[in-house]
Amino acid sequence: MKTQVAIIGAGPSGLLLGQLLAKQGIDNVIIERVSGEYILGRIRAGVLEQGMTDLLREAGVGERMDREGQVHHGVELAFNNKRVKIELEKLTGGSTVMVYGQTEVTRDLMEARDEAGLTTYYESSNVALHDVKSDAPYVTFEHNGETHRLDCDYIAGCDGFHGVSRQTIPESSRKEFERVYPFGWLGVLSDTPPVNPELIYCKTDRGFAMTSMRSETRSRYYLQVPLTDKVEDWSDDDFWTELKRRLPDDVAEKLVTGPSIEKSIAPLRSFVCEPMQYGNLFLVGDAAHIVPPTGAKGLNLAASDVATLYKVMTRVYKEGDKECISQYSDICLRRVWHGERFSWWMTNMLHDFGQADEHDNDAATHGKFMSSELNFYTDNEEGRRIIAMQYVGLPYEDLV
Amino acid sequence: MKTQVAIIGAGPSGLLLGQLLAKQGIDNVIIERVSGEYILGRIRAGVLEQGMTDLLREAGVGERMDREGQVHHGVELAFNNKRVKIELEKLTGGSTVMVYGQTEVTRDLMEARDEAGLTTYYESSNVALHDVKSDAPYVTFEHNGETHRLDCDYIAGCDGFHGVSRQTIPESSRKEFERVYPFGWLGVLSDTPPVNPELIYCKTDRGFAMTSMRSETRSRYYLQVPLTDKVEDWSDDDFWTELKRRLPDDVAEKLVTGPSIEKSIAPLRSFVCEPMQYGNLFLVGDAAHIVPPTGAKGLNLAASDVATLYKVMTRVYKEGDKECISQYSDICLRRVWHGERFSWWMTNMLHDFGQADEHDNDAATHGKFMSSELNFYTDNEEGRRIIAMQYVGLPYEDLV
Repeated sequence: MKTQVAIIGAGPSGLLLGQLLAKQGIDNVIIERVSGEYILGRIRAGVLEQGMTDLLREAGVGERMDREGQVHHGVELAFNNKRVKIELEKLTGGSTVMVYGQTEVTRDLMEARDEAGLTTYYESSNVALHDVKSDAPYVTFEHNGETHRLDCDYIAGCDGFHGVSRQTIPESSRKEFERVYPFGWLGVLSDTPPVNPELIYCKTDRGFAMTSMRSETRSRYYLQVPLTDKVEDWSDDDFWTELKRRLPDDVAEKLVTGPSIEKSIAPLRSFVCEPMQYGNLFLVGDAAHIVPPTGAKGLNLAASDVATLYKVMTRVYKEGDKECISQYSDICLRRVWHGERFSWWMTNMLHDFGQADEHDNDAATHGKFMSSELNFYTDNEEGRRIIAMQYVGLPYEDLV
Repeated sequence: MKTQVAIIGAGPSGLLLGQLLAKQGIDNVIIERVSGEYILGRIRAGVLEQGMTDLLREAGVGERMDREGQVHHGVELAFNNKRVKIELEKLTGGSTVMVYGQTEVTRDLMEARDEAGLTTYYESSNVALHDVKSDAPYVTFEHNGETHRLDCDYIAGCDGFHGVSRQTIPESSRKEFERVYPFGWLGVLSDTPPVNPELIYCKTDRGFAMTSMRSETRSRYYLQVPLTDKVEDWSDDDFWTELKRRLPDDVAEKLVTGPSIEKSIAPLRSFVCEPMQYGNLFLVGDAAHIVPPTGAKGLNLAASDVATLYKVMTRVYKEGDKECISQYSDICLRRVWHGERFSWWMTNMLHDFGQADEHDNDAATHGKFMSSELNFYTDNEEGRRIIAMQYVGLPYEDLV
């Protein structure tokens, strides 16, 4: 079996890349470890930067998003008994974000791929990448009890943090940067109307909380919790009670509660693998970098990787220029590090790092720096603009 | 002996406060541990915010500063083989800084105090503050072999980090926040023309360096050095050689070297004591807070404390309103923490924290965040404005 680009992973990155390449007549096959249904069952991000929505439209999958997604013109920060609005559109001269669940993006992409008749091997096991430094790389995998070999020109590793792609690069040829945080996010999805038309990031003495949504009838809420907590420890009632305590009073009194339809705890991590290219293997999205969810950059950074790889592959196949391949990693990493820094910064400003602990002077001092930071960047328009510029997403970089 | 305000310390804070109070007819006496000559021999900061220069003019000591000081309209950051100019005046809508040495400020203040015939006890020993929580505080000290008692209404503790004032507050009534840095600044003063008309903050793989000046014929240069280094380890030649390595090439080739007239190593520290008031004792400047020198905030934060205490004392004596005393600490601390955060931030962005150490992943990751931070805040005008706003100094806050 042969294709031009083998794509490992049928999450939103792999599917979007496949769709864009197909539009340029570049043949691709996706190999995925789990089933399509399993992927659609994962609850993930829901805030799309303008760059990503443009890319989805370019891939021909923007129709339902533009019909059902909610354009958000602002976002709120709540702390010290006040609510500060970051007027995204006004502060950036016209940029907004789109609230449209990752699950919906993925569903649209899967349907488009089906319609286009493109090949996807779901539930493939023992996926292995071979000879990625050579001109003739190939992928082997088992599917329906049979072993397959897929020969290709290039491999796009869109298989996430735990995937095989990054592990294929010898340790001596990559450098990994990591920061872990001493807490996680407990998330609840419920079929209740969102408490506020815009997202609210809340910093409180009890820890961080966040109100988000997926639609006008589906809400997504988060609480900062210790890493030692287990989902089973949190009943729905416990969750709603604690959430109300962390929301501003005028918001809490409007909260409509209901049964959770999903509840999970995610640890927070900053992670980057450098470089993002090794021979004819390209790492895309979570395979190369993870951000804490504060600031909603994870899916958006994956999309900008896809945009860059799409430009590279298009030039390779349309113009026969293989030189541009060497630009991939540097272009991606510049934007990735900005997103990593923004997510780390927002996480630091808004969470409780145990500053109240009298015995940890370093944490207490850092907490004071962060309180001053939050005041400075919200008290004046110049500071709010800095938050807004990064929240809507920095511009995509073109190839040289 | 009796006065209205006893001032502990004849550094620039104590002297400036004394001068301002005297202008309002508020009697004050300064008690200082060392001699005036010793104070004038200490080489310290040289960049004054507009708020401080205005305050010096209000105190009637701005004449020589306005004649001999240099107004700086910008400052430069050098890194990654480029020089980025932060156009202070343009980005802030008209604010600048004044380069005029702390030594000169102090000399002008001492002369003005002499002319006004105000009392200063230099070379006083065993200074002790008594009954500061009562309505009748007093200070005892020895001078010329005699023991004195100075009764007063209020005490201003302007006696620096190692002074007696802060120590007078019981430990249970204050909270101290601290961050130490794993390096110091080696500073050299020389009678050579400054290498550049504006200050340059240089981030390099060899560590931080800075070019500053005190006048058109006197330069001040700094190098980041390990805390284990001693001044004796650094000959003048060593210093100039290392400085040239850390300056941008086009700057290094213009460097004029000469014998050092002062050479010292200062450790870097962030420190804040809360609250800054205890009964009728007020902490001012270094007695309550220390910043690393990156960003030149130390003397300027002392000046804004003086401005606030001046307003408080004026209202107390002119309007008989003692309620306003309780505002002192909060007003000071808001601005202090902004200055602390800015100094910490600039220090983090511009210094080498051992990121190159392959075995310290956390330091390496932080180094990556800081590189991205420096790029983001210098690549666009909005970011440069954020640096400029803080460099020229945030506005002074008025009493309610």
